Amino acid sequence: MADQHALRTDATGYPVSAALRWEEPPEGPVIVLLDQRRLPAEEAELVCTDVPALVEAIRTLAVRGAPLLGVAGAYGVALAAVRGFDVEESAAMLAHARPTAVNLALGVDRAVEAYRAALKAGAGARRAGEAALAAARAVHREDARASSLMARHGFDLLDELLPGGAHQILTHCNTGSLVSGGEGTAFGVARAVHEAGRLRRLWVDETRPLLQGARLTAYEAARAGMAYTVLTDNAAGSLFASGEVDAVLIGADRIAADGAVANKVGSYPLAVLARYHHVPFVVVAPCTTVDPGTEDATGIEVEQRPGHEVTEFPGPLPAAPEAGGAPVASVAVAPPGAQAYNPAFDITPPELVTAIVTENGVVSPVTKGGLAELCDRSRSGNGMMSI
Amino acid sequence: MADQHALRTDATGYPVSAALRWEEPPEGPVIVLLDQRRLPAEEAELVCTDVPALVEAIRTLAVRGAPLLGVAGAYGVALAAVRGFDVEESAAMLAHARPTAVNLALGVDRAVEAYRAALKAGAGARRAGEAALAAARAVHREDARASSLMARHGFDLLDELLPGGAHQILTHCNTGSLVSGGEGTAFGVARAVHEAGRLRRLWVDETRPLLQGARLTAYEAARAGMAYTVLTDNAAGSLFASGEVDAVLIGADRIAADGAVANKVGSYPLAVLARYHHVPFVVVAPCTTVDPGTEDATGIEVEQRPGHEVTEFPGPLPAAPEAGGAPVASVAVAPPGAQAYNPAFDITPPELVTAIVTENGVVSPVTKGGLAELCDRSRSGNGMMSI
Repeated sequence: MADQHALRTDATGYPVSAALRWEEPPEGPVIVLLDQRRLPAEEAELVCTDVPALVEAIRTLAVRGAPLLGVAGAYGVALAAVRGFDVEESAAMLAHARPTAVNLALGVDRAVEAYRAALKAGAGARRAGEAALAAARAVHREDARASSLMARHGFDLLDELLPGGAHQILTHCNTGSLVSGGEGTAFGVARAVHEAGRLRRLWVDETRPLLQGARLTAYEAARAGMAYTVLTDNAAGSLFASGEVDAVLIGADRIAADGAVANKVGSYPLAVLARYHHVPFVVVAPCTTVDPGTEDATGIEVEQRPGHEVTEFPGPLPAAPEAGGAPVASVAVAPPGAQAYNPAFDITPPELVTAIVTENGVVSPVTKGGLAELCDRSRSGNGMMSI
Repeated sequence: MADQHALRTDATGYPVSAALRWEEPPEGPVIVLLDQRRLPAEEAELVCTDVPALVEAIRTLAVRGAPLLGVAGAYGVALAAVRGFDVEESAAMLAHARPTAVNLALGVDRAVEAYRAALKAGAGARRAGEAALAAARAVHREDARASSLMARHGFDLLDELLPGGAHQILTHCNTGSLVSGGEGTAFGVARAVHEAGRLRRLWVDETRPLLQGARLTAYEAARAGMAYTVLTDNAAGSLFASGEVDAVLIGADRIAADGAVANKVGSYPLAVLARYHHVPFVVVAPCTTVDPGTEDATGIEVEQRPGHEVTEFPGPLPAAPEAGGAPVASVAVAPPGAQAYNPAFDITPPELVTAIVTENGVVSPVTKGGLAELCDRSRSGNGMMSI
């Protein structure tokens, strides 16, 4: 197993991922992004030569997903430093590109701190830039390593929970290499199962309203050569009823201290279906997702998103990327003035979660004590993984 | 209550519905349809002056829904007869416009039989045409009356099941006057609750993949002045969890003898959620939906629909209706070649159904004996309602 989850690196041994890489062509360093706005229709790369271009890419969701934003933010600081732009100003711009993405600010901070520390220690601008880049690569590598460890722990857990043979796994939303410096969370586990020849089928919930499953997870599954099938979120019930789901694997946006899991809307109905059908419901997330300051579900505020995400369907993107990448036209799918209820995520209580898989191992059954014990390991250390 | 559910009639006392009416302008009789392909963006009427136009409307889903197709088919025969076209040929065309819609053939048969009987009894073509029209109006009236009775029984059931005050009702798919000669099934009950001032909110599942909820139920709710909110099917779980669903009301495509309910995909997950949250799950359907020849769920074959309904999103209709009413362009929402699982409906076992409401009354708990007793009343009679 371990070899299958070795970090993906470039020719010089630095980490790369499907969604983002640092390149150093003769005309100067750049950050190359896979433009996620154009998936799955088109695999277009977006080359950022400066921080304003990267900020625009972050703002318009060309690059997205909490862990990957942390990586992008750190590389952005390195780009400014290495190219000789104003680092402090660039860092401030990056950190505020999407105000609610805490990982973004954390990634930016790591690189800025390294830059400042180098300057303070008497390094010139060039060496300080190298320090910022080294920090960005560390953020990237740690994120990829966490993915790799989650994949290994998740694989072992499924091996233990499910009778031998190949698994039929249902997943929701997008949790793979498009949102991570590595192979992701839940998708990373499914991929490990696939690479071990143990995946019978990945069922991909389309994940309304924004269709991250159909658009992005299906893209990643196709690229990885996995046997996958897309379904409307509505159709999952039929699969459970016919015994075609062996396990549900999802990621998490935030986990409360008691193990309540906030994740993309539609996760909770899957948890209820899984319980009704005696199917394991497994959450895969790094310990940074566990918030010890949030006691339980009542402490999690659910973001309500604009109704037009439900009542309108965005048209195709223009053939060439235009400013803002706005879709060319929307199709109304509800009467004019229709009100929509559009929570971004829902909350699954710990009693419906079979296990939480982190980079530090697995907690099952999910208890406050077990979760704290597992995740305190990384918090009490130096930020690196303890296993 | 009874007055609120009186049949809607035109100035001459004949039944009319939102989706279909018979008109007799000076230039000759016509069938006027609300073009459902253009909803909710546009309320366009389609005037059929002959049977080929009506067949085209049926074939392209301008008019749809099993009970309404029965009404349309009967009027189609009347149109041919009254306008002096070949009635037998027209009837054959209509009956085969959509081969799986049994109600369509039944409606056609009723009108043809009346026409033939009149001829056989020595009537001229004009009188035979009038007989066909009278039969069509009877089909329409019976369907509207069944709706009205279901609405009354459903209203009374909710009154009994739920504590006083206003109800928050969740519904799925489209079950209102767009699929019926009257006010429909589940939607008709919700409308009765609304008209009695007892509806706090109608939660409208968008109902992927074809969005009948967002497109059609929301349209009907808006038109009826109901307080309604559209949601992705994913978001229903959050509403249950926060106690904002007092009852689920759905229709049925087919009910097995034991009470297993086949309905639009996504109904079964709602039944599981309803059970988990101790919320009544109520099915509203006329006795014609109960199939005594189908023992239980195992006898119901689930239609698998084309994957493109899931993996592509149809573009807007052209501004002017074109032949076939095909959308102008589709947007791919999954990678090229993505496989999709797209069952048209799912099956809810009787133990998850709180009650089945028919025009003859309510069966609760749902048992084979109770259901048979209720529905045998109409079968053993002359086809009219027994109460």
